[in-house]
Amino acid sequence: MEKANKKINAAIIIIGNEILSGRTQDVNVVAISKWLNGLGVKLEEVRVIPDMENFIVKTIKDVRKKFKYVFTTGGIGPTHDDITSKSIAKAFNLSYGYHKKAYEILEKYYTPGEFNEGRKKMAMLPKKASLIFNPSSAAPGFIVENVFCLPGVPSILKSMLGGLNDKIVGGKQILSKTINLRTVESEIAESLEKVQKRFHQVEIGSYPFFRSGKVGVSIVIRSTEPNPIKDCATQIQSFIKQKKIKILGTE
Amino acid sequence: MEKANKKINAAIIIIGNEILSGRTQDVNVVAISKWLNGLGVKLEEVRVIPDMENFIVKTIKDVRKKFKYVFTTGGIGPTHDDITSKSIAKAFNLSYGYHKKAYEILEKYYTPGEFNEGRKKMAMLPKKASLIFNPSSAAPGFIVENVFCLPGVPSILKSMLGGLNDKIVGGKQILSKTINLRTVESEIAESLEKVQKRFHQVEIGSYPFFRSGKVGVSIVIRSTEPNPIKDCATQIQSFIKQKKIKILGTE
Repeated sequence: MEKANKKINAAIIIIGNEILSGRTQDVNVVAISKWLNGLGVKLEEVRVIPDMENFIVKTIKDVRKKFKYVFTTGGIGPTHDDITSKSIAKAFNLSYGYHKKAYEILEKYYTPGEFNEGRKKMAMLPKKASLIFNPSSAAPGFIVENVFCLPGVPSILKSMLGGLNDKIVGGKQILSKTINLRTVESEIAESLEKVQKRFHQVEIGSYPFFRSGKVGVSIVIRSTEPNPIKDCATQIQSFIKQKKIKILGTE
Repeated sequence: MEKANKKINAAIIIIGNEILSGRTQDVNVVAISKWLNGLGVKLEEVRVIPDMENFIVKTIKDVRKKFKYVFTTGGIGPTHDDITSKSIAKAFNLSYGYHKKAYEILEKYYTPGEFNEGRKKMAMLPKKASLIFNPSSAAPGFIVENVFCLPGVPSILKSMLGGLNDKIVGGKQILSKTINLRTVESEIAESLEKVQKRFHQVEIGSYPFFRSGKVGVSIVIRSTEPNPIKDCATQIQSFIKQKKIKILGTE
């Protein structure tokens, strides 16, 4: 619905059988999305795909054409199921081998006896990849054109995002206002739709919740412009007052 | 990597700006995936897409050709941003309007004054959709061909899955065994790869974890066949013993 910021968008590709099998709860989408919001980049699609080379290659080729920035998570560790780097090389028709700078970083990080084959594998990257600094555990992420490859371990991934700020050319920051109500969605649906129709620059979402056995609705107003958010909130608060609905709080 | 069960697969399409904006943490993938594992259906892809009709229509058309079962979550409530039903109708070239049976269910559930326009909207479905029973809050999900449309609220979604068991023709149940180790991935990477190469029927995943300040690795062995899992586990336990790595537990 929101038309602004249209081209400054991003997608995330989560590479990991452990997410698809239900074994692991992904938390990286929330972390990356919140970081992108602050940079004025709108996350528009997420895909979770298996650790299969042909699947990864096809998805990368498809998604990177459609979005300004693509972030992958997972599959850059030392084990046999870590095939992201090799697959990215294939998707870009680049050779795959030891990356001099990555090798040096890892060689320096580990004591001589510790730098074994598994760890050396983490220096195998697509030719011409530029590195993403990893302040937690040394093994770098990497960038090829508009594709940014990050690890799957949430704490390590989070520690690497800040270092990417100057690599992302964002747009206006995406602002939001939330109004939490003691009501059910159907009570406000018609009035809310009327307000949405008056404001094309904002995106109004309505989300039911259940807390301590009571139902409620969060109305979320999002836009890159502060004034339409304010005007929109005023109109929503006006029909809420008329309907005598209790406001639980605003954020 | 796993070749068995290849055709009995599924995809999930999460329809929701609130997931993409980072506001809401999805938990439905884990719930649906675990339920599918029990039915012998392998989840092979997840997509998270915005509440935009053209995006939904395109994704449905694309994904439903590639997978035996497709599950959508979200966008079937009473508000203006709930556009899943209408979009599914469009994707299948079906007319969209009041569904007699759904209307009757909702009319019966609400007291006469309560059955307002917002709630009536939840009876607007694609023509010929068959219904998915909702034991929590009445508003049904629906099925069109191989696409199963479920709500986004996790507790309601979960309550509806059991009722679908007889609509899913699954394969052999996907079994798994996990071995948790006090080690780092690079210590076991080479040995683990050798074992994987000997077992084509199993999928071996390696996942580092951090608990109470200590690192460890979970090795997860998955297959539809119990014997290869057992043999594979024996070989892994053998190299673990040689390397004098501590086993923290098995699941």
